[in-house]
Amino acid sequence: MAEHDIGLIGLAVMGQNLARNIASRGFRIAVYNRTVARTDEFVAAHPETNITPARSLEECVALLKRPRRLLLMVKAGTAVDDTIVQLRPLLEPGDIIIDGGNSLFRDTERRTAELEQAGLRFLGVGISGGEEGALHGPSIMPGGPADAYAAVKPILTAIAARAPDGTPCVAYLGPHGAGHYVKMVHNGIEYGDMQLIAEAYDLLSRGAGLDAPALAPIFAEWNAGELQSFLIEITATILQTTDPETSRPLVDLILDTAQQKGTGKWTSQNSFDLGIPIPTINAAVEARMLSALKHERVAAAGVLGGPSAKYSGNVGELIATVRAALYASKICAYAQGMALVKAASVEYGYQLDLGVVAALWRAGCIIRARFLDDVTAAYRQEPDLTNLLLAPYFTAALHEREQAWRQTVKTATELGIAVPAMSSALAYYDAYRSERLPANLIQAQRDYFGAHTYQRVDKPGTFHTEWLST
Amino acid sequence: MAEHDIGLIGLAVMGQNLARNIASRGFRIAVYNRTVARTDEFVAAHPETNITPARSLEECVALLKRPRRLLLMVKAGTAVDDTIVQLRPLLEPGDIIIDGGNSLFRDTERRTAELEQAGLRFLGVGISGGEEGALHGPSIMPGGPADAYAAVKPILTAIAARAPDGTPCVAYLGPHGAGHYVKMVHNGIEYGDMQLIAEAYDLLSRGAGLDAPALAPIFAEWNAGELQSFLIEITATILQTTDPETSRPLVDLILDTAQQKGTGKWTSQNSFDLGIPIPTINAAVEARMLSALKHERVAAAGVLGGPSAKYSGNVGELIATVRAALYASKICAYAQGMALVKAASVEYGYQLDLGVVAALWRAGCIIRARFLDDVTAAYRQEPDLTNLLLAPYFTAALHEREQAWRQTVKTATELGIAVPAMSSALAYYDAYRSERLPANLIQAQRDYFGAHTYQRVDKPGTFHTEWLST
Repeated sequence: MAEHDIGLIGLAVMGQNLARNIASRGFRIAVYNRTVARTDEFVAAHPETNITPARSLEECVALLKRPRRLLLMVKAGTAVDDTIVQLRPLLEPGDIIIDGGNSLFRDTERRTAELEQAGLRFLGVGISGGEEGALHGPSIMPGGPADAYAAVKPILTAIAARAPDGTPCVAYLGPHGAGHYVKMVHNGIEYGDMQLIAEAYDLLSRGAGLDAPALAPIFAEWNAGELQSFLIEITATILQTTDPETSRPLVDLILDTAQQKGTGKWTSQNSFDLGIPIPTINAAVEARMLSALKHERVAAAGVLGGPSAKYSGNVGELIATVRAALYASKICAYAQGMALVKAASVEYGYQLDLGVVAALWRAGCIIRARFLDDVTAAYRQEPDLTNLLLAPYFTAALHEREQAWRQTVKTATELGIAVPAMSSALAYYDAYRSERLPANLIQAQRDYFGAHTYQRVDKPGTFHTEWLST
Repeated sequence: MAEHDIGLIGLAVMGQNLARNIASRGFRIAVYNRTVARTDEFVAAHPETNITPARSLEECVALLKRPRRLLLMVKAGTAVDDTIVQLRPLLEPGDIIIDGGNSLFRDTERRTAELEQAGLRFLGVGISGGEEGALHGPSIMPGGPADAYAAVKPILTAIAARAPDGTPCVAYLGPHGAGHYVKMVHNGIEYGDMQLIAEAYDLLSRGAGLDAPALAPIFAEWNAGELQSFLIEITATILQTTDPETSRPLVDLILDTAQQKGTGKWTSQNSFDLGIPIPTINAAVEARMLSALKHERVAAAGVLGGPSAKYSGNVGELIATVRAALYASKICAYAQGMALVKAASVEYGYQLDLGVVAALWRAGCIIRARFLDDVTAAYRQEPDLTNLLLAPYFTAALHEREQAWRQTVKTATELGIAVPAMSSALAYYDAYRSERLPANLIQAQRDYFGAHTYQRVDKPGTFHTEWLST
């Protein structure tokens, strides 16, 4: 009986596909779902595998070798806590609960502490790759006690994606919430990537008048170069997809209201706590919020004036400058995300290795890209790199594209097409390379109205001025 | 003995000045400070007033009429909770504790509920105006039980600033944390105003090469027009202030690292919870965070390339376009802040009247400005206004300045001078007036990798596509 390697709880699509992935690697797995019918359907659909259905949590736990390894694939939030409450009395000291959902890292910190008191080990594991990744090999970001990771490492390593150099995209990241933290920032960067691609698409479609069939090969071409990535690849596929009913490009029929599930928002909110500017990621989250105001936008379109949005220049030139702007902006979005991870590593004691983090994202996950080989190389070369912009490879890449990047932002400004992520990326670049910013005036204002004091550039100390009497 | 109208706890500079203000209006006030020496010094310095020192909280409470009114002017955070814990056993049902600090509205919600259970009434009151405002008339934003407000209304009305039309800048806003919420957004808008002014200053100083003495009269002139405001006024004063030691403009000697105390950050974080985009306010908070990375910026300045930042065009023209951009961007920052207040009013049940909110900000507070007369008028004309951009007065003002605004952002982009608040404001304007945004592509991507489904523009329902098989 108790000879199963792992139990999996929660058979939504991610849970199902992970279970199939684990079973396909030769592990025996017990699966449980709150609605038993789903368990039965799932097992009936996959009779050839090492998968054993459990009709109760007790049955599931009884099927497992010790220390028991239980992977929760339930919805982030109270469902995780509820499941843990039900599991606790069934487990013994040393058993391991693995949360594979998109939990907020602070919840993972809390759960780790609570379970530790009961002698149980808790791993917070970020898993990225969507349905397909779960089935064929996701990127896996584990955090928690090192000994607990060692106990699940063979399974996670077997199911993970493989980077181009053959390395599995899984590695121990750090204690407590380290894994879920890294997954959160991965998702924040994913928001940035998606918004930047959307802005490039908008400039070329609304601006240059290129329709979806004309845009598909452009993105396909980009995908053969420095922009090669899963998201560019699927964009090309999406753009060439026709709606069977209307024979129109399907993308044109999709409502322009983007939804979100929380991890992008968490990344933004956390960046304000840590004091690390991530304006391009924030702009991406804000853009989704703006897209949701569809009714307001429709009403405002008839009231607020602007240019015609029609680009009258050389389209080939625009395509080239947009491509450069997209790549340069992408570097900035990643620089911001990695700076956030670096600060969190200190603040929360995660002791993260940024080279390891970037390496995990090379395959399996949604942001996988050739680009991440270069990011990994940059951090391997200089593990304490202050900011990705300063890695020689990326400094050179930015230098090469800077003029085209500025031209793209100027063109968008002229056309009245909002490119908040691209322009915030350029503003980030320009502010970051400014030895002197106008914050001296802000400090003077604060000292004027609130006596908040200021520092000087010519001598140490803290100063206050009675501005009205000088 | 028990004939004092109010007790004030916490004699830092804001507390001292509020106490003097209250006393000067004929109210008898008891004051208490944890360090008794400060109480003694304060009372000794103001012997002519209605101020009675209390050497303990017991003594302070004993000096008050019933229901007792106690105004806390202690540091936001645990100090407020600690003071409340000490006060509770000394008070009787119906007594009123007033928190006049910059408390987070969620803390105010919690304290309101806790004290209500003990039969005590709690008011969360935002007070803006800095030291001078506290002494001569601040803007006051009260929230809490209406009957408790009625009991302190005579005092708050007497000490408040007066708007140009003579109305006191105080009014009951709503229950629970409504007052502190409105104060938080006031401060978020203040961050936006300050950053926009700093960007205008940066373009004209670093870009056009105008020094502080040359800039002072420009800001003074702006202060005579549509930009008239406390912050523009003090900017002119700051720019004409000379450092007595070096005889150089003082602003040039101030370190360009802006600090912050939390309310701007809270506004940003809350906007992500409510799903209301406030990109210009966020850009202002981010800009302070970027300014704090002084050492990194100095290092990056030698590595990351860019244009010379020297403007070679007509300086008079630049001054005019920057002025227009500043005003247009300011409208967007306020539109974002007011949209946030509107959403919070629904989400938290505050039932706020946006016309009343704007009216409170016309005088006394840091963001006081002629502009707020126009904002007030817009909401009085249409209390349910969806977005300030749609008020005819502001639509026209934006229309008039749109070309110059775009020109300013383009010039900054060319010069390599970051104007994140101005450009995010323009992107907000352009996105808000876009009937169609590229979020359809984002929804397609989400459906592709996560089966998150999408809606269509041509028929109702929720759809999912098997993208690879179409």
